[in-house]
Amino acid sequence: MIVLIDMDDVLSDFDGEVYKRWKKTYPDKYIVPPEERTRFYLHEEMPEGSKDILREINTSKGFIRNLPEVPGGIEAVKEIAELGHTVFICTAPLLRYQNCAPEKYEWIEEHLGKKWIERLILTRDKTMIRGDILIDDKPEITGVNLPVWEHVIYDKAYNAGIKNQRRITWKTWKEVLHELL
Amino acid sequence: MIVLIDMDDVLSDFDGEVYKRWKKTYPDKYIVPPEERTRFYLHEEMPEGSKDILREINTSKGFIRNLPEVPGGIEAVKEIAELGHTVFICTAPLLRYQNCAPEKYEWIEEHLGKKWIERLILTRDKTMIRGDILIDDKPEITGVNLPVWEHVIYDKAYNAGIKNQRRITWKTWKEVLHELL
Repeated sequence: MIVLIDMDDVLSDFDGEVYKRWKKTYPDKYIVPPEERTRFYLHEEMPEGSKDILREINTSKGFIRNLPEVPGGIEAVKEIAELGHTVFICTAPLLRYQNCAPEKYEWIEEHLGKKWIERLILTRDKTMIRGDILIDDKPEITGVNLPVWEHVIYDKAYNAGIKNQRRITWKTWKEVLHELL
Repeated sequence: MIVLIDMDDVLSDFDGEVYKRWKKTYPDKYIVPPEERTRFYLHEEMPEGSKDILREINTSKGFIRNLPEVPGGIEAVKEIAELGHTVFICTAPLLRYQNCAPEKYEWIEEHLGKKWIERLILTRDKTMIRGDILIDDKPEITGVNLPVWEHVIYDKAYNAGIKNQRRITWKTWKEVLHELL
């Protein structure tokens, strides 16, 4: 099987780092708690003016490069590969790609190793990619094609509304995907 | 139809710029003339030690960013899109991705416009990408899958050995691809 795995908030803790930096820089400014999130894009449920601040945080030099790991993600990638499956990391760069694009490569090289550069795909349209499953936290994934992969939801508060799809975390993936992998 | 188009030596004149810089920096050092090329990778038909020099050239800051256009390429991309086809630029970053990855986005933004960032895919394995045709100068394109696209050869001396595949340049594409597009 070909297993596609998203990067932000699945392997790298994008939102966690946003929250950390926000609270450090603006300790008195409201930010919607992770467990109360209902939207994939954080700025959509934040007060007016937050979008620019969030963008300043997530496009800053070193932001992507220094993201901590989502616990268990890197181990899961390696285990899925060891089961004999072909794993690709499939990630959409920010439209402000200047720091994001190279730092995604750096992150993968540091956390998975140099040979995984061969297995990194940067695309804004994941329906262009072939695979059997895509593990992704985005609630709805659209593009120019109907996907060929099954979208397995990586569990987050903001995608809780998606029913009738397999749903995993790096704690539950083995039992949930047992019959597939 | 979904039309995938390679970047280096199809839209951007990668080799042309390598030759130009080589001749400027090492005017007395031999470099195999473009029309005598038989290998896709230039260093494979160059004297010992050339590989490092070539790498220094093509990984330098600004190299990808400042590549000139292959004449007619950008116009062809726009014309194919205007015919109603879905066009993606499908390009493999260098393993030394630090300058290459962001500068490919910059190049596309400058030469095609910001909205084309949505249509840029960076992948080292093009068999992972869905499409009807892939226009590419690389003689043989392999990966983890059998391709779903037809490989249309972008004509270069080093791919002249490939027979029984459609072959175009940006001067001939309309007549050659007429029945497809």
